Amino acid sequence: MTKIDSAFPMPRVGRLPSGPRDAITDVAGVTVGHATLAQGACQTGITVVRPHAGDPYLDKVPAAASVINGFGKSIGLVQVRELGVLETPIALTNTFGVGTVANAQIRQAIAANPQIGREWATVNPLVFECNDGYLNDIQALAVTEKDYLAAHDAAVADFTQGAVGAGRGMSCFSFKGGIGSASRQADVSSVERYTVGALVLSNFGRLPLMTIAGRPFGQRYVQQQTHENGPEKGSIILLLATDAPLDARQLGRLSLRAGAGLARTGSVFGHGSGDIALAFSTAYTVPHQAERAMPAQAMLHEGLIDVLFEAAAEACEQAIVAALWRAVTVRGRDGHVRHAITEMIPDWRQWLADLDD
Amino acid sequence: MTKIDSAFPMPRVGRLPSGPRDAITDVAGVTVGHATLAQGACQTGITVVRPHAGDPYLDKVPAAASVINGFGKSIGLVQVRELGVLETPIALTNTFGVGTVANAQIRQAIAANPQIGREWATVNPLVFECNDGYLNDIQALAVTEKDYLAAHDAAVADFTQGAVGAGRGMSCFSFKGGIGSASRQADVSSVERYTVGALVLSNFGRLPLMTIAGRPFGQRYVQQQTHENGPEKGSIILLLATDAPLDARQLGRLSLRAGAGLARTGSVFGHGSGDIALAFSTAYTVPHQAERAMPAQAMLHEGLIDVLFEAAAEACEQAIVAALWRAVTVRGRDGHVRHAITEMIPDWRQWLADLDD
Amino acid sequence: MTKIDSAFPMPRVGRLPSGPRDAITDVAGVTVGHATLAQGACQTGITVVRPHAGDPYLDKVPAAASVINGFGKSIGLVQVRELGVLETPIALTNTFGVGTVANAQIRQAIAANPQIGREWATVNPLVFECNDGYLNDIQALAVTEKDYLAAHDAAVADFTQGAVGAGRGMSCFSFKGGIGSASRQADVSSVERYTVGALVLSNFGRLPLMTIAGRPFGQRYVQQQTHENGPEKGSIILLLATDAPLDARQLGRLSLRAGAGLARTGSVFGHGSGDIALAFSTAYTVPHQAERAMPAQAMLHEGLIDVLFEAAAEACEQAIVAALWRAVTVRGRDGHVRHAITEMIPDWRQWLADLDD
Amino acid sequence: MTKIDSAFPMPRVGRLPSGPRDAITDVAGVTVGHATLAQGACQTGITVVRPHAGDPYLDKVPAAASVINGFGKSIGLVQVRELGVLETPIALTNTFGVGTVANAQIRQAIAANPQIGREWATVNPLVFECNDGYLNDIQALAVTEKDYLAAHDAAVADFTQGAVGAGRGMSCFSFKGGIGSASRQADVSSVERYTVGALVLSNFGRLPLMTIAGRPFGQRYVQQQTHENGPEKGSIILLLATDAPLDARQLGRLSLRAGAGLARTGSVFGHGSGDIALAFSTAYTVPHQAERAMPAQAMLHEGLIDVLFEAAAEACEQAIVAALWRAVTVRGRDGHVRHAITEMIPDWRQWLADLDD
Repeated sequence: MTKIDSAFPMPRVGRLPSGPRDAITDVAGVTVGHATLAQGACQTGITVVRPHAGDPYLDKVPAAASVINGFGKSIGLVQVRELGVLETPIALTNTFGVGTVANAQIRQAIAANPQIGREWATVNPLVFECNDGYLNDIQALAVTEKDYLAAHDAAVADFTQGAVGAGRGMSCFSFKGGIGSASRQADVSSVERYTVGALVLSNFGRLPLMTIAGRPFGQRYVQQQTHENGPEKGSIILLLATDAPLDARQLGRLSLRAGAGLARTGSVFGHGSGDIALAFSTAYTVPHQAERAMPAQAMLHEGLIDVLFEAAAEACEQAIVAALWRAVTVRGRDGHVRHAITEMIPDWRQWLADLDD
Repeated sequence: MTKIDSAFPMPRVGRLPSGPRDAITDVAGVTVGHATLAQGACQTGITVVRPHAGDPYLDKVPAAASVINGFGKSIGLVQVRELGVLETPIALTNTFGVGTVANAQIRQAIAANPQIGREWATVNPLVFECNDGYLNDIQALAVTEKDYLAAHDAAVADFTQGAVGAGRGMSCFSFKGGIGSASRQADVSSVERYTVGALVLSNFGRLPLMTIAGRPFGQRYVQQQTHENGPEKGSIILLLATDAPLDARQLGRLSLRAGAGLARTGSVFGHGSGDIALAFSTAYTVPHQAERAMPAQAMLHEGLIDVLFEAAAEACEQAIVAALWRAVTVRGRDGHVRHAITEMIPDWRQWLADLDD
Repeated sequence: MTKIDSAFPMPRVGRLPSGPRDAITDVAGVTVGHATLAQGACQTGITVVRPHAGDPYLDKVPAAASVINGFGKSIGLVQVRELGVLETPIALTNTFGVGTVANAQIRQAIAANPQIGREWATVNPLVFECNDGYLNDIQALAVTEKDYLAAHDAAVADFTQGAVGAGRGMSCFSFKGGIGSASRQADVSSVERYTVGALVLSNFGRLPLMTIAGRPFGQRYVQQQTHENGPEKGSIILLLATDAPLDARQLGRLSLRAGAGLARTGSVFGHGSGDIALAFSTAYTVPHQAERAMPAQAMLHEGLIDVLFEAAAEACEQAIVAALWRAVTVRGRDGHVRHAITEMIPDWRQWLADLDD
Repeated sequence: MTKIDSAFPMPRVGRLPSGPRDAITDVAGVTVGHATLAQGACQTGITVVRPHAGDPYLDKVPAAASVINGFGKSIGLVQVRELGVLETPIALTNTFGVGTVANAQIRQAIAANPQIGREWATVNPLVFECNDGYLNDIQALAVTEKDYLAAHDAAVADFTQGAVGAGRGMSCFSFKGGIGSASRQADVSSVERYTVGALVLSNFGRLPLMTIAGRPFGQRYVQQQTHENGPEKGSIILLLATDAPLDARQLGRLSLRAGAGLARTGSVFGHGSGDIALAFSTAYTVPHQAERAMPAQAMLHEGLIDVLFEAAAEACEQAIVAALWRAVTVRGRDGHVRHAITEMIPDWRQWLADLDD
């Protein structure tokens, strides 16, 4: 029988324990903020994940990404791959908001460090996107640089999930998608426990393939409803944070495991879906200035990493479930509606049970 | 309720139809042969997949691979990645057999084309491996070049699955693993149907994560039995064949979808597991000699590829199930035994049903 | 003795013949346009390369890139790598102009195809950058969407090189850099001749390593002048066009050969330099709509590709020389000046000859 | 004027100082051994590079590779890429010797650590190759496992270069190629100096493109002699060692700079050439066993890495020159001969000078 989460009523996947918030912010120092634009045909926004409370330009954060399916328009991955660090907060928005949010990150970095663009060369914006064009009038390019700053300044540990921030206009398996988060704790040895947190911008999925806790949820729904069944046009961004001491190569390995969690929800990494995962560690930072000392950090032994992989896969699968279950129904452009799954199927507990028969 | 396959009694996954054999050889022209070494502590072998009946050196086969987790010792992938073709049959064997089987492929190619190593430069062996050291005395380096030729010459469309060939000594989720195969048919448009076939050498998996048709099969087994639970030490090779006209870039995309099927069985692409997928197309070949005409082949439009991705994920998941269900119990070195799942849990149908309660 | 180009007085490298313009536009259909911003501290601009006269969204262009050193902030490469096509013109600008130019490309695509962001999903902007912050007040984020359209609409076959467009504020080996172009013709067989054209946005180079036609030009200059010698802070974008029928995999191979040409000018792919190469073919296009027929294009046999690699390396090396020799002196922010090499060393012919003694 | 090396008479490239041996063994701890097979049509061998005097399985060495052109048949790169370490010595041999040498490495590792293939899973052989088929009867598969052990046990700091070991049968720009080595010292700051050493197995190059110290050496030779001018069929393996504290990501960056040195000798990374570079660091090791402590090593700040890149490019270019100049003439199968450049052009000093006129 499918387990139900005790803290928040939703299906629970996997076997590892969650952190106290069951969110990416269980990794100490990580905070999340939103700017939500929700007026008529404009249903979109920005979400910002801050890896630590300081200036990530001065104290860069080890990071790496996996492009699981590259039908995506993010900015910043070329440099993350080369240098193994991020140097701005991570921003999520709609596909056509990337340029504007990148500009906002550039101006924010310059404001904090006026040497940028002068003697300190440049800054690498890091913006991911999904296409919320079903609900949102994406052609309007509505998000502004001010919205980015608002999202950034709103970042807290206890953040909202669902149809907020960049998740405002997103769809998932023909239901309402958006922002979801989860965390898992991993004992890599008898004395060391680390946390892996996930945050997804969930906008993918073909309904007939939808799988909840291993059950063919979407197939049942398709049978009961007359419903569209087009090709994959979505996308998902999967962010992973951990306090385990991993270097960029190891974080790259961790990020790929997001794909294992994603696959379990029914994704086949669809052609039209930008499925991109990025992982970062909060265990240490890398100084911008060569004059400052580099951290003498012992990394986790590779032979102990497996349970972190499991935690990453689980946390991502759970975060996708969270994005669905925490969503509210949103009406957007041209009369388009995406219904919250909890509204469309209020007896979802019974439904899951029926799937077992 | 978990579906049971009608042709062969095993759990059935997914929703697409299978080809007539539910095997990689449903892709016309593909054949598979085994050489099995099964005597005392020597429990190993070689499996050969021939993409067509001709000489793959003269008529090369478009191909590409995805290294999902690179804890593996295959030979040949560097050149496949660069040139987008394979030019020998595909060989599978144990980890320490790669060198010997590569030598066999080289000598086979020279025998067929004495210009190789002379005016025609070289040939690229293509050998994949998993570590069967739990059952097999892998330190003995037992496979011979003759075994490779025997496997090659034994290749047929109606081949055996289970504890045969390279699969002889393999383990999967602490049960007996080995060779499994499956196929799925995909309608990319109202007039075009293609087949995607999968063949796996399945040697991976931590029992507590084992998932069958979405159900936590391994967790239940762990609860019922006192059983080892070490870190991932396995590996899996996933081969995909299709008759769809795809170029090497598209085949690379297809190959990654093997990972989606793999994840659904409980893999998190474990640290110690060489998880490598390779896809090839039989729709056309590429001539060795520059003097011969290149094929003027229209490739499949990318916008139609999604259902092939689904077929690839499904076929791989099914092939892993097949490797488990078609296996027989094997006893090997030092009294080690791997039990066939059907022997260990003869009432597995009831078991699956119970998992739903 | 170093050869001197007959058409335009500059050192000539390599041995293959040039096309009639010795420019990327020798590849039929390719055009180039600039928007130049040159007022006081604002010394920057945009350059647009159009692969054909039509709409690249409807008729996509096969393309692939090599990230030689990923200290760069381009947008669009993730999708080019996945799908093997570009679907907008290629834009070059300064590092902080990427977001604005991406927005311009998005709006341009929507204007031409209002289905984008509706039933046709999204469009992938493709913008490359170098950091012109030594001459240009890059913190001002001066380039506008209108500038992009102006550059686009100005595209012609007979375009200007040097301190124009995106090249306006660029530096190269402490001299004035910018836009340079060249072409080479390659006989792949006795009957088939193809052209490879290069266009560079040249902004890289540490003076002591500067090499012209194999000679240590920079070392001599360093000896004669007291001159700054800081670490690499530049970047170079290298675009290659060809009329040879290559698929995306082959174009990826071609693009890497840009690095061979780059290395010969004294680059070691410096840490702080975003060295990114992209190659595209004009031999065929790929339709946006799945309903349209895919091209049944025979690709070039791999065994004939070598001379195209040579052409690519040569054309890139020559284009860098062109960027230096076609530049004019530019004065920018805070009294900074970059001198044209031809102004600083008017007797450069004698200089090159002296290097031989 | 081209500089001539003072210690050994050959053209000298670049501007950084060499270490005392001008060889890869200037990186402390690194040793090199050869087994040379030179009898009639059998002109081949094995070269082994040992990164330290201990057991690299127990104390793994940080490493990464760049596949510049993947027309190659090496074994071991998949795992090096995933895990960022090597765990055997590095072996070089002919194309058809890879399997046999891999077997030898496996048996050597098992002999030292009988747990391999038992409780310690497997070992990753690391063997690179070039095709010496012009001089050597490569079809004979002549190298043996015993030869590997002989090469391994012969490893010393003061090793021979030229037509020895794996270099015995190699050709380079139609002259005799083989093993060459060089080193360069790099001051990354006013207090820290590191060494970068290179060793190449040099078997590449089309004569008309041959470039020595920036001069078109091959073009002059082509003009003077009637000489074959076929397509690129060679290959080159470029190994880099450094005592700088770099992690695998940084070593991957370093390894790519081998391509800059290679390009300067006239290579365009030819289609048929397996151009593969691998870099390793001796600054620290990674323990096999998870129970042992991981090194708390501060890595080099990325902002200081540029001069190491320069050292890598220079050392590789010099090592190729060394392979040519240290070679002796070798006669092999079917009357084929490759002449040492110093024998063919005894007045090469004058020749280089003449190239300047």
